[in-house]
Amino acid sequence: MRRWNGWGDDSIDYPLPGNARRFLETLVGIAAPVPGLTLEQAAAQVPESRLPTHPQVQTGASERLRHARGQSLPDWLALRCGPVGPVPDGVAYPQDADQVRALLRFAQQSGACVIPYGGGTSVVGHLTPDQANRQPVLSLDLSRMNRLLNFDPHSLLASFGVGVSGPDLEAQLRSHGCTLGHFPQSFEYSTLGGWVATRSSGQQSLRYGRIEKLFAGGRLVSPIGDLELLPAPASAAGPDLREMVLGSEGRLGVITEATVRASPLPEKEEFHAVFFPDFTHGQEAVMQILQKGIPVSMLRMSTAAETTTTLALAGHEALISGLEKLLALRGLGSEKCMLIAGFTGQAVMVRAARQEALAETARHGGVHIGRTFGDQWHKNRFRTPYLRNTLWEKGYAIDTLETAVGWSRVPTLLPAIETELRTVMQSFGERVHVFTHLSHVYPYGSSIYTTFLFRLAADPQETLQRWQAMKRAASQLIVSSGGTISHQHGVGRDHRAYLPAEKGELGMQALRQAAALFDPQGIMNPGAMFE
Amino acid sequence: MRRWNGWGDDSIDYPLPGNARRFLETLVGIAAPVPGLTLEQAAAQVPESRLPTHPQVQTGASERLRHARGQSLPDWLALRCGPVGPVPDGVAYPQDADQVRALLRFAQQSGACVIPYGGGTSVVGHLTPDQANRQPVLSLDLSRMNRLLNFDPHSLLASFGVGVSGPDLEAQLRSHGCTLGHFPQSFEYSTLGGWVATRSSGQQSLRYGRIEKLFAGGRLVSPIGDLELLPAPASAAGPDLREMVLGSEGRLGVITEATVRASPLPEKEEFHAVFFPDFTHGQEAVMQILQKGIPVSMLRMSTAAETTTTLALAGHEALISGLEKLLALRGLGSEKCMLIAGFTGQAVMVRAARQEALAETARHGGVHIGRTFGDQWHKNRFRTPYLRNTLWEKGYAIDTLETAVGWSRVPTLLPAIETELRTVMQSFGERVHVFTHLSHVYPYGSSIYTTFLFRLAADPQETLQRWQAMKRAASQLIVSSGGTISHQHGVGRDHRAYLPAEKGELGMQALRQAAALFDPQGIMNPGAMFE
Repeated sequence: MRRWNGWGDDSIDYPLPGNARRFLETLVGIAAPVPGLTLEQAAAQVPESRLPTHPQVQTGASERLRHARGQSLPDWLALRCGPVGPVPDGVAYPQDADQVRALLRFAQQSGACVIPYGGGTSVVGHLTPDQANRQPVLSLDLSRMNRLLNFDPHSLLASFGVGVSGPDLEAQLRSHGCTLGHFPQSFEYSTLGGWVATRSSGQQSLRYGRIEKLFAGGRLVSPIGDLELLPAPASAAGPDLREMVLGSEGRLGVITEATVRASPLPEKEEFHAVFFPDFTHGQEAVMQILQKGIPVSMLRMSTAAETTTTLALAGHEALISGLEKLLALRGLGSEKCMLIAGFTGQAVMVRAARQEALAETARHGGVHIGRTFGDQWHKNRFRTPYLRNTLWEKGYAIDTLETAVGWSRVPTLLPAIETELRTVMQSFGERVHVFTHLSHVYPYGSSIYTTFLFRLAADPQETLQRWQAMKRAASQLIVSSGGTISHQHGVGRDHRAYLPAEKGELGMQALRQAAALFDPQGIMNPGAMFE
Repeated sequence: MRRWNGWGDDSIDYPLPGNARRFLETLVGIAAPVPGLTLEQAAAQVPESRLPTHPQVQTGASERLRHARGQSLPDWLALRCGPVGPVPDGVAYPQDADQVRALLRFAQQSGACVIPYGGGTSVVGHLTPDQANRQPVLSLDLSRMNRLLNFDPHSLLASFGVGVSGPDLEAQLRSHGCTLGHFPQSFEYSTLGGWVATRSSGQQSLRYGRIEKLFAGGRLVSPIGDLELLPAPASAAGPDLREMVLGSEGRLGVITEATVRASPLPEKEEFHAVFFPDFTHGQEAVMQILQKGIPVSMLRMSTAAETTTTLALAGHEALISGLEKLLALRGLGSEKCMLIAGFTGQAVMVRAARQEALAETARHGGVHIGRTFGDQWHKNRFRTPYLRNTLWEKGYAIDTLETAVGWSRVPTLLPAIETELRTVMQSFGERVHVFTHLSHVYPYGSSIYTTFLFRLAADPQETLQRWQAMKRAASQLIVSSGGTISHQHGVGRDHRAYLPAEKGELGMQALRQAAALFDPQGIMNPGAMFE
């Protein structure tokens, strides 16, 4: 059963290894668990539904609660500590585009607004009804639109209902010998439609591409009609309307079908770990590998703090201590930084790419330690979010924020973001443990993905204020430094204040105007991306 | 000096090899040259300028004539045979964004419309003032905005004035050890701004990407203000506004600056030729190479008719006859098809990719004949358009059309397009020589690029009618078969009737609405993309 107020399947736990708690206490102090709401207590806060009855719309409190929020820290605080805040007035599970059209009409007739719901994994408030909005809210859960509708084995084009989740999509493609290769950390629950609507990026996007590349076309059902997007391999026929639907965050309508570009299952795949004496060396190696066009399938370069934290939380004490000794012999100390590098494809190409990439890392002082840590990363890559549950129960909050900039700005912006977070928490008399990696890397720049861990305050509102202060400071720093307000999480409600800095006044007008065309009454996810 | 009524530098000729004329006569019949207009005669057809005087606007007949047309067959007919038709009323050469803004204001105040002019290489009527439009027309020639404005050596981001031509851009990047790698056939004259405005694709887009990928950001100066596009490596911050400017064909404003993603000059580059027993074998090999993710930098797969034509027009009779003998020994006859394959990058990767790719071609009956023909292709790749001049002077017209579809549709659509062209010309009692290649190939589909050669009629209007009939029939076939109306040429005025079939009614509304936002008076290139 899916956790209603946390990450993942409630039968799966990620216990802290023995020494981890001590490690956390040293970093940010001893924490105390914060009492939480039970599902019954939370459900009791859910008000009466304001929607008229409809045979397909469920209005039970628990159902509505389960569609009220995503996975951001404010979302967790609301569900775990309350106040629960706005929840949708009803939830419907359409099974096809016709039912979506009928439900949009129902919403229009009822004066309601509509929030499309994929896997509920948003971390930036895509799903939270605006407090100020007085309309009833209908949540459209698309999880029943999850079938492979068509597969073209020559063109490797697969059309799916958009509610298909990552594992379900991969399983259906695997039966045709294919993979989409889209593995965001939310993979277990996030859906194809959500990926498209929020411009998602997977961990192996270096090989397979971001969702922008994988999404060939499909159908958007809007309040004024359908937009069909032709799945051409490429086109010079005017502006690309796919790119208006990608990242539209529900404002234009409901994406009901998506045709994606699959790849044959790779012949071979390997993940290797390399340790560098410091981050500068590692970053330079990563940049060179990309700029030379060596076909790696993933690179994840951690700062020293992230490296230490990863090793501390990994368990396997004997293994880690062996590693530390080995690296010490090679002169790598407390500033050492871990790179995970993936190689995927034809065996010959994997070998050539690995050789070239490892030669490049060696030129920058990298120590290749084989596949153990790479395999470990690969095996656990969707497990990490479960750690959030465990940490919360011990009294710790953990969250992430991210941007992307050109390589020339990475060395200043990365530490500046970390410092900003620490400075804000200092002003509250608290510590925050901050660490960062570069995981979506390009020849011309990189994402910067920062994780921050801090103690929950006894008063949940105090925790929220601290988080808001950190988020605000980091976001302002990011946009004023020429970074995008989001490389992979999207805009939602948490980032919308910073979007005008990026898009400009005219750009915002263009976005608002497109929404007004497809959704003249403004019923589609009002408040997401812009107010 | 640039030819005013044909392709390229007027000191460069591409003479027909000895046997080529005979070859053409056998295919489509003996042709007779058609008398043409001199520059003076054409200039005499240019009417008085309707623009008020402006210190930066030139209104001489020859200057205006040189900005009246692109390189489509109707463009050639107009300039070479007349009637010349609509020409702009004046030409200005702005040197920066401020001058562009001032000229847009001048146009607004004069009731004029504006056609941005890059290299004048459009083949689909991007530049031709609409006959029905009664406004004066101001051509903005951007060729003086051609400098490298900024180069970031870490991020490999280069900002240029958009009037920079292909060779000039490459020369400026080469001084920094870089290349853009964008080589459309129009490379010699086409400009960065034109590439962006028309969604251009270069011959090595398999390695470097289409202009959509290379264009990181920049500035659009519109009648209501500037739109700045942040050059982020990637972003999930809502719809990508770059993709609204890409392919905007002058309808939103004037792109004045573009930041592009450069690559280090490759360590190694090779072009190889492989011959297949027939097209089906070749196409299958190409598809496999791409779907296996082997990093080739270009693939160009010619039909048997294109292969024969290329060999016949290449000269080098001894070389060709040797080749024919060699291939005959390997069992390849008149259905043989040539593939040119390019490998670019680090030496190790070039070797591995070549090995894998050639192993794949061998599995499909391909005979690798080394680098001679590949090098020949590479050397002459921008020379081919000069053949149009020579052919015209002998009484032959040659033109191309193109689309892109998924792999499953290539085997039916390719011959259907060819048949359609032949059927149309048969109805005029004429023959047309048709041949095709796949040159922009993707794991999930391919462009189809068809060349057609026919005799000029004694009456130029008759030639135009024949061309229009062929173009119409092929375009209708393409859109009704699910192909894009253009993979690389753009929409302009020649394809606009077919755009609604591709974009849908709602899609067209979105495009019109964006143009109306940025250009409320409709002064920007009216008639391009849509009426």
